[in-house]
Amino acid sequence: MNSVFLHHYLIFMTTETLVKNIKAKKSFLCIGLDPDLNKIPKYLLSEEDPIFEFNKQLIDATHHLTVAYKPKTAFYEAYGVKGWISLEKTINYLNLKYPEIFTIADAKRGDIGNTSTKYAEAFFTDLKFDAITVSPYMGIDSVEPFLNFEDKFTILLALTSNIGSHNFQEKMINNTHLFEQVLTESLKWNNAHNLMYVVGATKATALIKVRAIVPNHFLLIPGVGVQGGSLEEVCKYGINQNIGLLINSSRDIIYAGSDLDFAQKSMEKAQLLQTKMAEILSQNGF
Amino acid sequence: MNSVFLHHYLIFMTTETLVKNIKAKKSFLCIGLDPDLNKIPKYLLSEEDPIFEFNKQLIDATHHLTVAYKPKTAFYEAYGVKGWISLEKTINYLNLKYPEIFTIADAKRGDIGNTSTKYAEAFFTDLKFDAITVSPYMGIDSVEPFLNFEDKFTILLALTSNIGSHNFQEKMINNTHLFEQVLTESLKWNNAHNLMYVVGATKATALIKVRAIVPNHFLLIPGVGVQGGSLEEVCKYGINQNIGLLINSSRDIIYAGSDLDFAQKSMEKAQLLQTKMAEILSQNGF
Repeated sequence: MNSVFLHHYLIFMTTETLVKNIKAKKSFLCIGLDPDLNKIPKYLLSEEDPIFEFNKQLIDATHHLTVAYKPKTAFYEAYGVKGWISLEKTINYLNLKYPEIFTIADAKRGDIGNTSTKYAEAFFTDLKFDAITVSPYMGIDSVEPFLNFEDKFTILLALTSNIGSHNFQEKMINNTHLFEQVLTESLKWNNAHNLMYVVGATKATALIKVRAIVPNHFLLIPGVGVQGGSLEEVCKYGINQNIGLLINSSRDIIYAGSDLDFAQKSMEKAQLLQTKMAEILSQNGF
Repeated sequence: MNSVFLHHYLIFMTTETLVKNIKAKKSFLCIGLDPDLNKIPKYLLSEEDPIFEFNKQLIDATHHLTVAYKPKTAFYEAYGVKGWISLEKTINYLNLKYPEIFTIADAKRGDIGNTSTKYAEAFFTDLKFDAITVSPYMGIDSVEPFLNFEDKFTILLALTSNIGSHNFQEKMINNTHLFEQVLTESLKWNNAHNLMYVVGATKATALIKVRAIVPNHFLLIPGVGVQGGSLEEVCKYGINQNIGLLINSSRDIIYAGSDLDFAQKSMEKAQLLQTKMAEILSQNGF
């Protein structure tokens, strides 16, 4: 594939492409690439770049079962310059070898306008991710610089799956939760069609409230598996006419094995989820 | 200075040291190191690492007038691996040459627990910053991993200086603003003595509300200068028995000049602020 075509392809990742891929693969799985040198197979530690080697093998083994990969930037930044190089190699590998796959920088960034623009440049222009996760706390001018990038997606934290989500996200403001205010406000922002939202799977019934406000947007759902969320529950309340769901699984899949066959074990775990997803898609007429 | 001593010195940055430095330098200035290749002096672009060269000259020219430097990570990430190298060189230069200076990674991170731990390792252990800015949206378990580092400071976003602060931070929850809830809740968290807070200078009267909840903690105040905040107003409402303020200025200082003498121009701008600060300290009996 020549680079002109690659560039052309990359800038046209759209909702339509994503939906088409979900239907083709019968999967709305997103795999979290959160490599930790203390957890990856020991034999990889002698590689020049153990993190990239780990990711590469995982990607090659699972790419047919997943529509998205989501590296959490923290797991790369923890290793400084070396980690950033591993992140760059990982996204370049994905964009070159599997350009149809949706790539999410799970960075949870957000700052005043000129600074958010720099973050958007870092992840959309420099690294060429299709999407980035963003924190809503600083409001409109901290998020719009991301939304200004057409054919890129801004995945806003709404309701997260961790314990601390009770502290603020679930507080009531004029009879609605803060996370509902985030959803409602964000729809007024420039290029709101480029938004997706993070909604934790441990709050499946909260999805009723979420879908009442954002019936059409895609939701990125972490927390299925280790964190206790149920895939069936999430789909029951979250699925829409475009499917509209990306279900993330990280640790369950990427640490399924710890030996030479680790990628095979990961593939088997991903396969289990994909099989369930194919059933759910079929039950819902897709 | 040998590395054992350096290490020993670095892990003992405390509030007492910071206050001592403020009194010695008669300054509570923090300089934002937010380098943009489109804005730095053109002659630096032929350097091998223009960003580090820009920072180095700024630091050497202003270190006697400031008690803290605060690189915004976005301005480094925008340049990928090269940018991260510049950030690493900048913090290493500060820690080696000016170890008494308080260093803040303005990163606005925050994620679920195991991921926040990775961010804390990235900025506290790997890069050896004294402090990091953190977003409160995900609550207790997204912030405590930072607080767990003793002799390191976690600077929580409370009330920011941008327009979008109206969207959520100033919303009312049970008769108090969300930013007040953030302050109140955070005091219950493990190692809350390691907290500082971001409070925008454009809201000087809001400082009354802030000081009612956190009378003793340090506040990091952006927004003086370009963003319109008044130094006198901020000090009137924000100063406490430990001084308790770090006033950040970025663009006003770092882009004061654009030629060979840019660092001298920056020094003059910093000098103006430091002179005002010395007066304010004197008026307040420090």
